[in-house]
Amino acid sequence: MSIGTVTAPVERALQAMEDLLYRQADGFHADLQAALHHLLQAGGKRMRPSVALLSGHLVDADEEALIYLAAALEMLHTATLVHDDLIDGALLRRGVPTLNAQWSPAATVLTGDFLFARAARLAALTRSVRVMERFAETLSTIVNGEIHQLFEGGGYTDRETYYWRIYAKTASLFELATTAAADLGHPSEEEARALQRYGYALGMAFQIVDDVLDFRGDQAQVGKPVGRDLQNGIVTLPALLYLMRHPEDETFQGLLQGRRLAREEVQALVARIQASGAVEEALEEARAFVEEALDALQVFSPSPEREALASLARYVVERDK
Amino acid sequence: MSIGTVTAPVERALQAMEDLLYRQADGFHADLQAALHHLLQAGGKRMRPSVALLSGHLVDADEEALIYLAAALEMLHTATLVHDDLIDGALLRRGVPTLNAQWSPAATVLTGDFLFARAARLAALTRSVRVMERFAETLSTIVNGEIHQLFEGGGYTDRETYYWRIYAKTASLFELATTAAADLGHPSEEEARALQRYGYALGMAFQIVDDVLDFRGDQAQVGKPVGRDLQNGIVTLPALLYLMRHPEDETFQGLLQGRRLAREEVQALVARIQASGAVEEALEEARAFVEEALDALQVFSPSPEREALASLARYVVERDK
Repeated sequence: MSIGTVTAPVERALQAMEDLLYRQADGFHADLQAALHHLLQAGGKRMRPSVALLSGHLVDADEEALIYLAAALEMLHTATLVHDDLIDGALLRRGVPTLNAQWSPAATVLTGDFLFARAARLAALTRSVRVMERFAETLSTIVNGEIHQLFEGGGYTDRETYYWRIYAKTASLFELATTAAADLGHPSEEEARALQRYGYALGMAFQIVDDVLDFRGDQAQVGKPVGRDLQNGIVTLPALLYLMRHPEDETFQGLLQGRRLAREEVQALVARIQASGAVEEALEEARAFVEEALDALQVFSPSPEREALASLARYVVERDK
Repeated sequence: MSIGTVTAPVERALQAMEDLLYRQADGFHADLQAALHHLLQAGGKRMRPSVALLSGHLVDADEEALIYLAAALEMLHTATLVHDDLIDGALLRRGVPTLNAQWSPAATVLTGDFLFARAARLAALTRSVRVMERFAETLSTIVNGEIHQLFEGGGYTDRETYYWRIYAKTASLFELATTAAADLGHPSEEEARALQRYGYALGMAFQIVDDVLDFRGDQAQVGKPVGRDLQNGIVTLPALLYLMRHPEDETFQGLLQGRRLAREEVQALVARIQASGAVEEALEEARAFVEEALDALQVFSPSPEREALASLARYVVERDK
């Protein structure tokens, strides 16, 4: 399944958003323009804009404001990726060199700041104070989550902390996409609540699957390295579920005590986690979130947009196939 | 002259803003709270909030919204300083260790991002779409200026570029303080224009004096190092005015060609600039901006707030005495 066919009902709006995004550095320094175009061309599936546009259509949101919202979401997402890549020292994202790989840290920090500024401006162009408040709160949530990860490390040992972390990292922005879209339309209270539930559940499923993929790379045709999170001391859901059943695992206990694991130790631990059924169990949790997202959509009458949102939710757990 | 007595007409509002600023990390990570308190305690004269509050009083702005605006301005200013210090590798600001001196680059980037998010939230709390638009545009302007400085260096050879640069760096935020305050009140068109002129001129004077002070440290009791800008290859107004009269200065030409000057070369060049009268001439340009700021205030009837704004403008050129 490709996301391209799913988003057909909002294809024109997505194209308008794309044009808008590319124009955001016009009139500014040429290198800022080049950086923005590089980042936008690196791709990404425009999931958050698609969710916002489809949600907005369900509640008769103003089309022009919706396009600004969609662009603001993608710009905010891009800004956080630029600073994330700098912090992680990542050299590639989506197979394309990161800004960080080519520019100085100073230029990378400033480019991220510029993208935040443009995201804020696009949010302001929706003319909705509520949308702008939500943007600012969501950015606070995302950054607070990253600060926690940086200072406390990723060695969670309970599901609540893991859920809180992936909400901050990913689901909060999906929830922003649907709730801000609702702000721009005329939803009933029940519809507004349904869109919030859908955005939250979709985002949670999205991040769990992302974390599961880190244990599945070996099954793909292309030999993608697996266990990068464990290598970096980050415990995600599959690892957490394994730990609950095997608290005696000495390698894992060493990791929790802050020991950096050797490459072979990580591989062996990944194999034990895979063999334990924990990866499939984590995927079950993602599927439960998808079911919740689908359930939330039931308050809306059938429409191409409702079907597209349902397909997006199903796509999230099927994308590793 | 102390800024404390000047701002008496808005003392209560400034105190309310101060309380609000300190609460901005409540409920977030303890280290974010500690960092925010450290930054706020490091001081600063709260010039931008004072200007906004006084301007707002002149045009009957809503007091609660004004306090949010004042806090948003100080928070945005603080956020840009955190990233600036990281980029410059500065270890001290206002005599207090920078975040950068104590924290990792990653933590410093994220703390700056968090402060941007809180500034955006405070701006949203004004409930004015126009104010939020202005915030986003001003942040774009500031960051674009820094990108220019980073990529092109500071070797300006014309006044227009210097003026453009100090507008982006400093005057844009003072202009934001007065124009956003006007948005929250009920100014006539003439009054709105006057506040914009005042903010612009005050900010330009402020930065020129800041640049002049870098050539005057030797006159102070405390032996502050002079010529730091030249040492870093940055040409400010006194140096520019000297260059116009002495294009033959070989050391200066070397600097413009990107040569890093030795400490003794900088000292000798500073002495030549001081002896040429260029420092006093630069200060005259600052005084002309102060006169423009004072002139702009004439559209308002006499009031403690108008007098306070006039005193602030005079203070800007007298603060090195």
